[in-house]
Amino acid sequence: MSNRLDQQRKGSFITVEGTEGVGKTTNIAWIRQCLNTYGIEPLMSREPGGTNLAEEIRVLLLEPREEPMAELTELLLIFAARAQHLARKIVPALNAGQWVLCDRFTDATYAYQGGGRLLDKTTINNLENLVQADLRPDLVLILDIEPELGLQRARQRGEPDRFEQETLEFFRRVRAAYQERASQDPTRYLVIDAGQSLDQVQRQIQSGIEAFMSRRLAV
Amino acid sequence: MSNRLDQQRKGSFITVEGTEGVGKTTNIAWIRQCLNTYGIEPLMSREPGGTNLAEEIRVLLLEPREEPMAELTELLLIFAARAQHLARKIVPALNAGQWVLCDRFTDATYAYQGGGRLLDKTTINNLENLVQADLRPDLVLILDIEPELGLQRARQRGEPDRFEQETLEFFRRVRAAYQERASQDPTRYLVIDAGQSLDQVQRQIQSGIEAFMSRRLAV
Repeated sequence: MSNRLDQQRKGSFITVEGTEGVGKTTNIAWIRQCLNTYGIEPLMSREPGGTNLAEEIRVLLLEPREEPMAELTELLLIFAARAQHLARKIVPALNAGQWVLCDRFTDATYAYQGGGRLLDKTTINNLENLVQADLRPDLVLILDIEPELGLQRARQRGEPDRFEQETLEFFRRVRAAYQERASQDPTRYLVIDAGQSLDQVQRQIQSGIEAFMSRRLAV
Repeated sequence: MSNRLDQQRKGSFITVEGTEGVGKTTNIAWIRQCLNTYGIEPLMSREPGGTNLAEEIRVLLLEPREEPMAELTELLLIFAARAQHLARKIVPALNAGQWVLCDRFTDATYAYQGGGRLLDKTTINNLENLVQADLRPDLVLILDIEPELGLQRARQRGEPDRFEQETLEFFRRVRAAYQERASQDPTRYLVIDAGQSLDQVQRQIQSGIEAFMSRRLAV
């Protein structure tokens, strides 16, 4: 179970990020449709999770509980789930030439644990290198929204999980961390204004995918 | 929830290590009795585990499962549980002046994941520093036995867990890693020949504790 990527791999790895209530589910379905028009049927996955064991770790991470979870415990559980997801699902798929479309990945760790919890970025980067070696998403779509608006939407969905219970200030830091990540690599990151109408959001996503496909074909 | 140790701490941190079937339960009870004769009632704990959440992580680690667990997943789950155990139980106890007597700790990670699984020691050391800062056990008792004999004993106890299902070769590497750790710091480590009679084992443990107490009083 090596996480090493085959240099000959053909599949691309696309991740979708964003804070609560940003419309990820709807927009991921749309991204998939956009890829379908190119004859690509991506393997769909999500983090934390993606395999049975990683989904069990997800439950530990999201369930509200009486015992406060230490910040390092949270961070290490996330990377434990990610190591499993990579070894058992993502890397084999990419190596087999499949595309992978994943709801959240390591940018979420920089945003939530780095930005939100204020954990040291170098620590996150060390774990990223340990678990992923040189694997990074080829394209990251960040659905961006005012945290006030996103939380309003998210809280209509029922019982909040351990993260959704966080403060507005926490989500402002998460959002800022996402934006900072995106600004450092504008080619690989695409920030979508998710406060627009669904139609506008979808058009922006579509042209982002089109641009990515052109770059990809040009290589 | 800082893992920083109070410099004024009075409690000592004693851990007990060893491969399967080495008689840890019986001997830990005996170590506790030895400490009791000095008026010390240690906080008893174990790894992986020690808090509700860490015990849930323990279940993930030990349960045999169909989905093979990636080695890095195992390593990160162990340190996730440890971070929780330290933050919620061990560090607060030591800082309050309590003694802690723990069934397995990070030496087990060097032995099982380093020796057994052949994971890189530098990786383990980096995670140890991340999660423990400068906290190390004050005394480590290693119960040492021929793996053949230990496994024979352990397998009489019912269904083997995910580790007990490992090969003899695996446990030989685990044992060798424990011995190597001990040889590098003979003051802090005490290797007990657990193949002796219970009476002999207990006398060796007792004089080890006595020597530790004398050193401690001499500081």
